[in-house]
Amino acid sequence: MPPSVVRIGLLGCGVVGQGFLTLLGQRERLIRESVGAPLKLARVAVRNPGKSRGVDLSGAHVESDPLSVAKAEDVDLLVELCGGESMLEPVRLALRRGVPVVTANKSLLALHGDELERIAAESKTTIRYEASAGGGIPVLQALEHGLRTETCNLLVAILNGTTNFILSTMERDGRDFAEALQAAKALGFAEADPTLDLSGQDTAQKLAILVRRAFRTDVALASIPTEGIIGMELEDLRQADRFGYTVKLLGVAIRHPEGLDVRVHPAFIPKRYLLASVRDEFNGIYLRGEATGSMLFYGKGAGALPTAQAVLGDVMVTAREVVAGVKLLGSPPNHKPETRVPLDRIRTKYYLKLLVEDRPGVLAQVAACLGSANVSVAQMFQAEGVRGEASITILTHQAVDRDVREAVKGIAKLGAIRKTPRAVRIFDL
Amino acid sequence: MPPSVVRIGLLGCGVVGQGFLTLLGQRERLIRESVGAPLKLARVAVRNPGKSRGVDLSGAHVESDPLSVAKAEDVDLLVELCGGESMLEPVRLALRRGVPVVTANKSLLALHGDELERIAAESKTTIRYEASAGGGIPVLQALEHGLRTETCNLLVAILNGTTNFILSTMERDGRDFAEALQAAKALGFAEADPTLDLSGQDTAQKLAILVRRAFRTDVALASIPTEGIIGMELEDLRQADRFGYTVKLLGVAIRHPEGLDVRVHPAFIPKRYLLASVRDEFNGIYLRGEATGSMLFYGKGAGALPTAQAVLGDVMVTAREVVAGVKLLGSPPNHKPETRVPLDRIRTKYYLKLLVEDRPGVLAQVAACLGSANVSVAQMFQAEGVRGEASITILTHQAVDRDVREAVKGIAKLGAIRKTPRAVRIFDL
Repeated sequence: MPPSVVRIGLLGCGVVGQGFLTLLGQRERLIRESVGAPLKLARVAVRNPGKSRGVDLSGAHVESDPLSVAKAEDVDLLVELCGGESMLEPVRLALRRGVPVVTANKSLLALHGDELERIAAESKTTIRYEASAGGGIPVLQALEHGLRTETCNLLVAILNGTTNFILSTMERDGRDFAEALQAAKALGFAEADPTLDLSGQDTAQKLAILVRRAFRTDVALASIPTEGIIGMELEDLRQADRFGYTVKLLGVAIRHPEGLDVRVHPAFIPKRYLLASVRDEFNGIYLRGEATGSMLFYGKGAGALPTAQAVLGDVMVTAREVVAGVKLLGSPPNHKPETRVPLDRIRTKYYLKLLVEDRPGVLAQVAACLGSANVSVAQMFQAEGVRGEASITILTHQAVDRDVREAVKGIAKLGAIRKTPRAVRIFDL
Repeated sequence: MPPSVVRIGLLGCGVVGQGFLTLLGQRERLIRESVGAPLKLARVAVRNPGKSRGVDLSGAHVESDPLSVAKAEDVDLLVELCGGESMLEPVRLALRRGVPVVTANKSLLALHGDELERIAAESKTTIRYEASAGGGIPVLQALEHGLRTETCNLLVAILNGTTNFILSTMERDGRDFAEALQAAKALGFAEADPTLDLSGQDTAQKLAILVRRAFRTDVALASIPTEGIIGMELEDLRQADRFGYTVKLLGVAIRHPEGLDVRVHPAFIPKRYLLASVRDEFNGIYLRGEATGSMLFYGKGAGALPTAQAVLGDVMVTAREVVAGVKLLGSPPNHKPETRVPLDRIRTKYYLKLLVEDRPGVLAQVAACLGSANVSVAQMFQAEGVRGEASITILTHQAVDRDVREAVKGIAKLGAIRKTPRAVRIFDL
């Protein structure tokens, strides 16, 4: 007999949790009609059960131990919104008991996604995590459903709202990095400690999750070469603009004949790319499918309500399966690790920016470093600076990534160099 | 006991049908793993069963009567790829028998979608039609799943690849309408008779389908005010560019407090809009959800393989339900007709282009027509032309749509007017 109510166990009641409960209340009728039964908040685990919150938890059993909620008999569906790796045990436990899980936890899925999907499949239940990558953008479900048998060979994505807001603000308002970061904090787009965002780690986590779905392969988070946007200067963005590019922090995954190329780094991208128009706190995921061709999914990658809405979407699909007594979508992962193309070996164009002593012979020394590393110059500009300095801007032709980095190391050691050279990849397919 | 094979009945074997069968063959292993059973083509209805095709139909029963396939006992899932309203009977018949249907038929869904969804729900089966609007873009499933309980109040979409290719070509290459149409035909982006595309009817059909899902309301196709791009001149696109706009054929649906505003017409849109970057044969669907905020779905709206891939996505989800013996996603439509805001009453900005006799007093007459209709001018430019003519470009402030059209009618009657005035709405939220 189908259950007359689907009982939710909720872990965490911060901004996303409260947003989720708000939507659950506001959309009660629609949810009941779609699921075929009402959803009821049965249990909540929060760090401090005594603390008052913006939402009413009076109908639920409020406790402090996530494990106790995960193993409660009166929970049909576990919603994990605490975040962090400490949620591994509660999520594992629920899945092993056959209780389906919906989570927004990107570090958990990036690190343990394959294991958790396997446990889910073995227990004939499901784990869904739309909100963990791309926030409110329904891209994971598109990969799970409509694109399930599509072959994706290219994924390029802007997955971090904080860094995208910073880069957009620098570009549009001509503000420097520190000012733009300050603005992001003031608007709530950056956390007090924005290291995870600025370092590219947040992007790498989300990329690992997306690649697993889109490429049907497991990529270890630690194996993804990751560079953030720290050190990016307003002058770099101005140069990008001058050459018809805009700067974005990209998560990239490309299947080459030689293997899979997965990486996170800032890049100059041509302004004609749709991703170049993904600005401010928004995310965009560009996919290329063998049959479907180019696709872009765009929307808010973070924020309480967009994230809560994505969680609710997963909860709805899962609750319908609970009511129907089936689990349709949990097929066991069949992910073989693929040969990887190391970052050293990829071919890419580069933007280089040097500050040098303005005296004869310097340009020749720079050119010699590039030439001996097999890096060919597409465009080079020298501008007079102040205090006897000159700035040199170089756009390279396609070259082997390691060769360019070796050349830059050589250039950095030249006596005439006044500042650590900047080197940013140009992503131009 | 779950069926050991899911038997497909296929109606139509044109380019999309052949693409579908090609994908079915290429991805046989993935499909079998995902569905839990292989898919088998049991029956095909084609107009001329004797004709040879690019795909092998030897394993299937090939016949000429769609109704016979729709009522065959050995069909578990009907895939309708003939298109056109004549498919109503076969689709109805299959649904009434409890056989789920996947279709790419936009006119069928635009005209009879509500009825067919109701029959499906009554028969406890499903009808899915991802490919009918937005082609290869997985937007309908996003609305069915993740966004099922989201409230959408705004949808603006480029849904016709032919007209978008024509407008992009005019804009980029400086070609006139006729040349761009020729180019579209040469590349296979326009049919021999492109009336349905150019008139906006194709966009209106797809809009009706999307609005039903996104707004959960039924909008009669005939009730959608529809204007196409015939008559659009290169000069209009150049003017748009000068003022920071680009020209797109839009499907628009907005929920105002007074009612639902649904319409299809060409419009100037600001270049900063993401939709402005949706070029050539691509489609883009911009949605605004109450919780999720702005979203954009982008991809190919037509073409054999993108369409076939969308059909295959629906077939996969449906086949899994056949294997599991459940129909999860067919909840009865609960669509109440909503109050509509007629086009006459909407408020919008306009671009007007007049060719007038170059003599004193004409500008005053034009201004008087606008003023007496309550249309206020934001910018006006006059340029000297040849043969004693002058061209006047006007951008209006927000005005009531009917008032502008009345004013333009008045202007058209002025003695000094040398050519039917052009009037294009400016869509700038």
